[in-house]
Amino acid sequence: MQYHFDGFTPGDPRVRPEAQGAGERPTEVDVLIVGCGPAGLTLAAQLSAFPDIVTRIAERKPGPLEMGQADGIACRSMEMFQAFGFATRVMEEAYWVNETVFWAPGEGGAGLRRTDRIDDVAADLSEMPHTILSQARVHDFYLDIMRKSPRRLTPDYGFHLTGLTRTDAPDYPVTATFEAPDSATETIRAKYVVGCDGARSTVRGSLGLTLKGDAARQLWGVMDILAVTDFPDIRLKAAIRSAHSGSLLIIPREGGAMVRMYVELDELHETERAADRNVTADMLIGKAQAILTPFTLDVRDVAWCSAYEIGQRVCDSFDDLGTEPRDARTPRIFIAGDACHTHSPKAGQGMNVSMADTFNLGWKLAAVLRGQAVPELLHTYSGERRAKAQELIEFDRDMARLFSSRSSDPDASARFQQYFQKHGRYTAGVEARYDPSMIVQAGHQPLATGLPIGMRFHSAPVIRLADAKPMQLGHAMPADGRWRLVAFAPRGDTGAPGGAIARLCHALDTAPDSPLRRYTPDGADIDAVIDLRAVFQPHHRDMDLAALPRLLTPPKGRFGLTDYEKTFCPDLKIGPQIFDRRGIDRESGALIVVRPDQFTAAILPLEDIPGLTAFFARFMLPQH
Amino acid sequence: MQYHFDGFTPGDPRVRPEAQGAGERPTEVDVLIVGCGPAGLTLAAQLSAFPDIVTRIAERKPGPLEMGQADGIACRSMEMFQAFGFATRVMEEAYWVNETVFWAPGEGGAGLRRTDRIDDVAADLSEMPHTILSQARVHDFYLDIMRKSPRRLTPDYGFHLTGLTRTDAPDYPVTATFEAPDSATETIRAKYVVGCDGARSTVRGSLGLTLKGDAARQLWGVMDILAVTDFPDIRLKAAIRSAHSGSLLIIPREGGAMVRMYVELDELHETERAADRNVTADMLIGKAQAILTPFTLDVRDVAWCSAYEIGQRVCDSFDDLGTEPRDARTPRIFIAGDACHTHSPKAGQGMNVSMADTFNLGWKLAAVLRGQAVPELLHTYSGERRAKAQELIEFDRDMARLFSSRSSDPDASARFQQYFQKHGRYTAGVEARYDPSMIVQAGHQPLATGLPIGMRFHSAPVIRLADAKPMQLGHAMPADGRWRLVAFAPRGDTGAPGGAIARLCHALDTAPDSPLRRYTPDGADIDAVIDLRAVFQPHHRDMDLAALPRLLTPPKGRFGLTDYEKTFCPDLKIGPQIFDRRGIDRESGALIVVRPDQFTAAILPLEDIPGLTAFFARFMLPQH
Repeated sequence: MQYHFDGFTPGDPRVRPEAQGAGERPTEVDVLIVGCGPAGLTLAAQLSAFPDIVTRIAERKPGPLEMGQADGIACRSMEMFQAFGFATRVMEEAYWVNETVFWAPGEGGAGLRRTDRIDDVAADLSEMPHTILSQARVHDFYLDIMRKSPRRLTPDYGFHLTGLTRTDAPDYPVTATFEAPDSATETIRAKYVVGCDGARSTVRGSLGLTLKGDAARQLWGVMDILAVTDFPDIRLKAAIRSAHSGSLLIIPREGGAMVRMYVELDELHETERAADRNVTADMLIGKAQAILTPFTLDVRDVAWCSAYEIGQRVCDSFDDLGTEPRDARTPRIFIAGDACHTHSPKAGQGMNVSMADTFNLGWKLAAVLRGQAVPELLHTYSGERRAKAQELIEFDRDMARLFSSRSSDPDASARFQQYFQKHGRYTAGVEARYDPSMIVQAGHQPLATGLPIGMRFHSAPVIRLADAKPMQLGHAMPADGRWRLVAFAPRGDTGAPGGAIARLCHALDTAPDSPLRRYTPDGADIDAVIDLRAVFQPHHRDMDLAALPRLLTPPKGRFGLTDYEKTFCPDLKIGPQIFDRRGIDRESGALIVVRPDQFTAAILPLEDIPGLTAFFARFMLPQH
Repeated sequence: MQYHFDGFTPGDPRVRPEAQGAGERPTEVDVLIVGCGPAGLTLAAQLSAFPDIVTRIAERKPGPLEMGQADGIACRSMEMFQAFGFATRVMEEAYWVNETVFWAPGEGGAGLRRTDRIDDVAADLSEMPHTILSQARVHDFYLDIMRKSPRRLTPDYGFHLTGLTRTDAPDYPVTATFEAPDSATETIRAKYVVGCDGARSTVRGSLGLTLKGDAARQLWGVMDILAVTDFPDIRLKAAIRSAHSGSLLIIPREGGAMVRMYVELDELHETERAADRNVTADMLIGKAQAILTPFTLDVRDVAWCSAYEIGQRVCDSFDDLGTEPRDARTPRIFIAGDACHTHSPKAGQGMNVSMADTFNLGWKLAAVLRGQAVPELLHTYSGERRAKAQELIEFDRDMARLFSSRSSDPDASARFQQYFQKHGRYTAGVEARYDPSMIVQAGHQPLATGLPIGMRFHSAPVIRLADAKPMQLGHAMPADGRWRLVAFAPRGDTGAPGGAIARLCHALDTAPDSPLRRYTPDGADIDAVIDLRAVFQPHHRDMDLAALPRLLTPPKGRFGLTDYEKTFCPDLKIGPQIFDRRGIDRESGALIVVRPDQFTAAILPLEDIPGLTAFFARFMLPQH
């Protein structure tokens, strides 16, 4: 965290300086978010960071969520929470999914035996753990970020969306009407509207879009319980397949006592809905006891229970242009999260993918609204996220089928287990890869084989040069809407004049068409839009900070104080170091272009300033 | 964090269930704390954790501190913050002191050269970093803990202590009078009073005690500045000795921009005080510029500056019994922190030692007030802490002398550097060792050579058996007033019947004179007073949780839910494992008795139940 640059200020540094108009509830806004779930809150938290973007977020429910249904937080989401600044709070409160165990019928179908035990998160998959924490607490953390943000943003609870129209009026081309808690009608005009209003989305309905996909027949029960058992793996994630009673998935919960169980129930008939079965806690408990036999399960309290038969469904488009040709118009209304894709909770993906939707959208909206990027950038949201949703649905379908397949099949357990392990990267959320587009450029992958283009920038341990702090390089990339250039230096380069990094910095600092010069507004810090960082190969004690180019120790803020946090060296105390872990070409180095949502957009040779200039010219708007 | 044991409750788990009478401001209290500095707040936070202890904390100032003078947080204090639950917040905000550099005059006395660069915290000295953060923020974190505690404790600001009398009245033997903010007189009767009211302590004065020691002649200036410099180590802790202009200590501050400088000034004359010199920021800046020559120092903003000539002084006693014989009475009034010892800030010890004072006192007061321990336990506070203060003063005197000694002496730099390195453990706060007493028992040290008796229990990485979580063993010891028994199992022992751990557990669980039975009140959880933990030698996947003794998976809370967080195995992924790091005798194992303030009280053979019983019988009170 960097603060005090404009003078010492007392108090919590997370409480950012208040922007003009902060906390107000204007009826004309830049962005109107409908829905206060994980997708809506991720977007609201992202937008609230910009002092100049006016947002409102409306929620149908009368107040904040107290008890969430989703709970699994994938490693990739934890990385995103880190960028928002609350990952450590989640790590403190959450259950950590460290290992997963598999149980199957014992010899001759009698009893249960543990067939395998594996690391849930493979080594160096992410610097973050896979955690389990109530969705309600994730909401709390987002609401806290919003309250402390420059915009001091808080939701409008009890707001029912009653109408939504794209008017294409010049200033505010979308008009939304709400029924407010006092039954009055409130009309909000917006530049952009984002529907994060769940599987029965009113926003989606207003666009005439529908969720398409399979009807779901398999019924599952889910309950959060406090229980006493002699099943030894009750505090591990456990997939249990009994011989004759079906399957059970155990997810230990935060706090050391509560456990979530997903219980397989009978298939639904053609026209039946989950609600028709009248599933009770006692039914679920009885079923779980049967599956766990010969182990005991004495349920002392039921915190929550439900039944679901969610199918795998997805929308044709995630914005108001639908499938129409995209030449003439740019989108003004978007949908995200459950509003545009639904799937079963067993893969633990729902909340995670919803948050990833709006983390993808947030910086794009901000860039367009702030005049940094062309509105066509917004096409990439539906393009990128719909492809990911489609992949997820296919994964979820396979997973659900394998999990529910009859346990009498002797190979079923082995197949499920193999599938589970193979797709560990996928469920961790780190496998998502965006196709080439105006903001993802293929090429030069061999310069950094461990940083696949289109995938999230994979962090690694480094030492920050100026203060010798051991840290994660990825943690120098907060969710602040900035692009990052990460320059990995070639062998022998210490940043001194004549080296590749010095030449790169000189060009970026002085060339008239340098993206840093072209896209940074007058009077702003040189890293306000594009933030250059460098990683050198020597031990940090063999570096000379004084010899670094000015762009790596730039003057910032009203006092022109030096920013010392741009330059890193490998951490040689922790296993393989960053150049090896991420497959950086040690002879030539590499320039990695990282999007504001932490995805690798491009890889370029260090000297390829024209290539870098051309990349940004595809979607950025010059500021002079 | 363990929660939901008595049923699911929504919201922040750090907000503990509210005790009866919480938040009230009664005029009859168990403990009255005078002073809201680090010592007072550590004590208040500790006491507020107990639903049944009524505390008030009064502060002369009109509101919370906004800008603190102390800033260095030693590793040991970070460990204590971890026990209170806010270490990660400090780690996020603070500057981390990773390395220290030494600068001395260059060849022939010209300019400056870096003479050495060392790790500030040696490997495996502590799992916590040495950090720098404004004292005001530390206060904020304590106040937050207090607000969320069962007692919902908040300070009484604007309260001036005007009188303090030990009346020896039966219920409330101490009476204090205050002038409240509205000028009214408020009388508070207390069982115990603790004066944490600083170097000019009114409480100390009322006891007739004085600080004794050297008058200070060496004048130092200190300032927090925002500056631009070409000195390359401005973001490292740097001790700089110039040839002719004196010495300078640089302590980088949190936030990446601010820097603290301690600047050596001329010695004071016999009768002179620091205030007489009228030290200004410009004077300090000029001096710092001279010392740093040939490097530039362009100060853009001064956040704070001061001058001090604090001597090394200590009280003869830290309680109201003074030096009188201790047979007849037990203490009712205590002093802590600057009220009983003062020293220069350069060793970065003041705030840390003050907090350690009251962390030592807090659990003792709680144990006596709750009827768990004999009042004679309270004698150990003055005994233990005065010895530590005396040591600190001697250390500080040597350190200050070495730092100020004339730089023309060619060996001075080398001597200072050697001294600094040699005493790294001391400045980290992990060297404090209490002498044998009723709560520190010598003997059996060879069973655990890396856990010196009388010193803080040194944490190490472990895997928690039930959920395979990698964690620090020391982090299973929150500041909740409980004693811990850490049973290290001998080779081959897996906790199964017949082994040493099973025998230990059986005896502790069933023997009529077992300390767990004798000192645990009826109806309380079996670990409510003495908390048993076990560490086994095998890989955690080779253990059978179901075979553990009941005492290691005890039923707890109103539902009788199993506590699965008692048992650990070595973490084999991280360097040397715990049995090797802490020198545990692998053949015989060891039973470590750990005090509520995390100090190792005794080491016993696993089978020595009589020894354990005898140890606790020295100061604990049977509950049946």
